[in-house]
Amino acid sequence: MKLMSFSRSLTAVCAAFAFSTQAAATAWQPVPQSQLAYVQLEQGAVLLLLADTFTPINTAQFRQLIRDGYYDGASFYRVIDQFVLQAGYLDGEKVPASVKRPTATKAEFSWPVPASSKYTLVQTPDLLAKETGFRAGFAVGREGTQEWLVHCPNVVNFARNEQADSASGDIAIMQGQAPRHLDRNMSVVARVIWGHEALNAVRRGDKAQGGMLEQPTSRSRIVKMSIGSDLPVSQQIHLEMLDTHSEEFLLQLAKARKRENAFYQYHGNGQLDVCYQQIPVRVQTTKPDKP
Amino acid sequence: MKLMSFSRSLTAVCAAFAFSTQAAATAWQPVPQSQLAYVQLEQGAVLLLLADTFTPINTAQFRQLIRDGYYDGASFYRVIDQFVLQAGYLDGEKVPASVKRPTATKAEFSWPVPASSKYTLVQTPDLLAKETGFRAGFAVGREGTQEWLVHCPNVVNFARNEQADSASGDIAIMQGQAPRHLDRNMSVVARVIWGHEALNAVRRGDKAQGGMLEQPTSRSRIVKMSIGSDLPVSQQIHLEMLDTHSEEFLLQLAKARKRENAFYQYHGNGQLDVCYQQIPVRVQTTKPDKP
Repeated sequence: MKLMSFSRSLTAVCAAFAFSTQAAATAWQPVPQSQLAYVQLEQGAVLLLLADTFTPINTAQFRQLIRDGYYDGASFYRVIDQFVLQAGYLDGEKVPASVKRPTATKAEFSWPVPASSKYTLVQTPDLLAKETGFRAGFAVGREGTQEWLVHCPNVVNFARNEQADSASGDIAIMQGQAPRHLDRNMSVVARVIWGHEALNAVRRGDKAQGGMLEQPTSRSRIVKMSIGSDLPVSQQIHLEMLDTHSEEFLLQLAKARKRENAFYQYHGNGQLDVCYQQIPVRVQTTKPDKP
Repeated sequence: MKLMSFSRSLTAVCAAFAFSTQAAATAWQPVPQSQLAYVQLEQGAVLLLLADTFTPINTAQFRQLIRDGYYDGASFYRVIDQFVLQAGYLDGEKVPASVKRPTATKAEFSWPVPASSKYTLVQTPDLLAKETGFRAGFAVGREGTQEWLVHCPNVVNFARNEQADSASGDIAIMQGQAPRHLDRNMSVVARVIWGHEALNAVRRGDKAQGGMLEQPTSRSRIVKMSIGSDLPVSQQIHLEMLDTHSEEFLLQLAKARKRENAFYQYHGNGQLDVCYQQIPVRVQTTKPDKP
């Protein structure tokens, strides 16, 4: 049977608008290669959008470590299916010969709401925040004077131990239902915006063992990580992202809120989960002027 | 470095209790084989807990189709990574020779809240329901006189087209952030409770094409589906699930609500997302008396 059970309105609306008006063309913004980290796995490249706007200290360290080759050969040593994929080096493991073990960073769990910045409100009140919305390509939470990055699926944070200022380089990629208890408790450095299918081949650990893969030989490894602007153009993937302030995106939100499609018997209560409302990303349709 | 960034309190609390007191032993309930559907893929078995308690019409049809061999050879024809895996037969595709195409079922999107039933309240108000909780091993939403099954990750529903009473046999497995807009809009027949890693090997479609895998040869297939009680004991997997009314589970909820662990700098607002609070499942530690 022909099914339309999951006619996620985003896809349809997005397609309709992207090719119909001139205004739509500008609603799609190219993603700068300098803001992309390429995680090369055996199965393909996973592309991360760096969160420089929000967590400059941790993102700077992440970017430096990528350029130093720190992650080349790092392993996914803690992996729970549909929950988390954590990569880096366990105690006693060798980091690449040319690389020093990084020092701990200062926590960037939340920060003052900027006085002037483009911000798209999605939901107030949210279940786990006073409000949620989008800013600079990321889902954010806000409460009082504070803003933070929301731990939606595909968010990448800097792993730490009990001390707030103890993250140094190991990264963790979120999957499955958003682990919102990590909001305001960890420094987010990026989010996966392309190629996440390649993560399906990463070896999983036993959930009962906290996902730890004790045997180094049993672990999947990162072949290489690179910053996009350091790659030759032929190896770059040119993406564009829908501007969350564009009419197109606002219309998507409005449609999701109302659920007027004939498929729906129940039309919802008008509330939205910011982690379900993903920002559309696609491969750039024309070659960029400046690589 | 040694990390405990994701010390999901469930695991720890669960482990601590399961082996410490006699009371804990009874908190773990064996999952009846008659309520399990085994989805045999090339990569392993995925086990579904059937939702008979809630959707008797659709679950009865699902169970009958499994026993008829309807799904043996069915393909995953619509797959979007971290969103949905939909399996069955497209228009014009051959169903197994011995099986008739099933007829459409009556929708079971919601039903009256039962007058007396064990129910564990998790959250009120929830963002997308008056309240959410657990009943009979499933996450439910409630509002006024109505109850429904919440579309958390791993939920399996009966795919349909625009008409409410149009589902007949194709199934869709949810992944990624909970698609709560499907709550009260689709009949839930089961949820994956074991072996979901095997789904990672299912071939994904292109999200821009709605995940459709047009070429039949490109699709992953279900080798066989069976009801657990129809299998020889040697082929059964014996699971037990933590009773959501047990002190152990209630303690897990309370801990998640308070986040008192030293890891947390921000302790949350006391609210819980029912889809994040999974019901623990494990392989039975002792052989069952009655297979």
